Amino acid sequence: MNLQHYPSVLLEEAVNEFAKLPGIGRKTALRLVLHLLRQSNTEVEQFGTVLITLKNEVKYCKVCHNISDTEVCLICSDSGRDAQTVCVVENIKDVMSIENTQQYRGLYHVLGGIISPMDGVGPSDLEIESLIQRVKEEPVKEIILALSPTMEGDTTNYYIFRKLPHSDLKITTIARGIAIGNELEYADEVTLGRSIINRTLFVQ
Amino acid sequence: MNLQHYPSVLLEEAVNEFAKLPGIGRKTALRLVLHLLRQSNTEVEQFGTVLITLKNEVKYCKVCHNISDTEVCLICSDSGRDAQTVCVVENIKDVMSIENTQQYRGLYHVLGGIISPMDGVGPSDLEIESLIQRVKEEPVKEIILALSPTMEGDTTNYYIFRKLPHSDLKITTIARGIAIGNELEYADEVTLGRSIINRTLFVQ
Repeated sequence: MNLQHYPSVLLEEAVNEFAKLPGIGRKTALRLVLHLLRQSNTEVEQFGTVLITLKNEVKYCKVCHNISDTEVCLICSDSGRDAQTVCVVENIKDVMSIENTQQYRGLYHVLGGIISPMDGVGPSDLEIESLIQRVKEEPVKEIILALSPTMEGDTTNYYIFRKLPHSDLKITTIARGIAIGNELEYADEVTLGRSIINRTLFVQ
Repeated sequence: MNLQHYPSVLLEEAVNEFAKLPGIGRKTALRLVLHLLRQSNTEVEQFGTVLITLKNEVKYCKVCHNISDTEVCLICSDSGRDAQTVCVVENIKDVMSIENTQQYRGLYHVLGGIISPMDGVGPSDLEIESLIQRVKEEPVKEIILALSPTMEGDTTNYYIFRKLPHSDLKITTIARGIAIGNELEYADEVTLGRSIINRTLFVQ
């Protein structure tokens, strides 16, 4: 279905807006708009205003730069957490993923991306300077680098590693290896090789 | 990724709204909301207001019930079209599909659904009465039934057929048969059988 003949300009504008979202084509956009049209005025108004409110009122924690409703986020202001350990992640979703493991009690630092010259993202576009400041001013003992295992991730890791002060600071990266449930024969060579080099004691 | 730990209530609310849309799960909803957060305030405001404006200002053509920016839609008010032929369709998308073929110069009548007792949709929920009125008051010579070839579609076709006046009115349905590009061996028996019964002259 080629969608040239929109019966209404308002409809076409709404479809255009949805089609700007990633992974939403014009056919899906039309389906979503027609779904909204079948809802009540109140529901559509809520949909629109919730998004506008989020964008206007969203705050980013001034310590870790995670999304937050308050000046300092709930994680950073939780005195029960280990303020000596800071986990460096690319984005908000990574914080949510690690929080859901319930295995980490330290704090975070959200870079807001990774160094990627192809996409025009340099170190100054990311929260790297604030990380260095944080390490200097706060009692941080360990930095865990938890970026993607890609060339961009490695570049960013190395850049941060070079910038950080090295006296008294432990710098680690999350373990790479064979994912639980994966079979050896389907693992790539680099991962399998690293999993042998970084083998751990069977009984710890 | 289990999404229990939202760092912000505003974020969670926005994700909830997106996740109400058909075919959008919570992970996709989060991805869309984070995408919107990276856009400018103006862009997000436009996204929200365009939807609210559509819902508040949308009109349905008082003749054919298609979505429209005006009282009578562009198709119904086009004097170049054949007002003696009315094609009955389920929804707005069907009008757009048929318009895109550029093979039809008549008018439409949008039912707004089909009779489906399972979903609680009866004849009175649809624009059937207005179709009967239209046939009585306007110079309609042919009604083309273009509903889905399902049990609900057939029920609706039959209901409309019974309600319409039969003197001087031609009632047709769109041709069913093997789709162009489809191979015979994959066609279902009913379709293949009908395509043989309703065969057409090779050279017309």
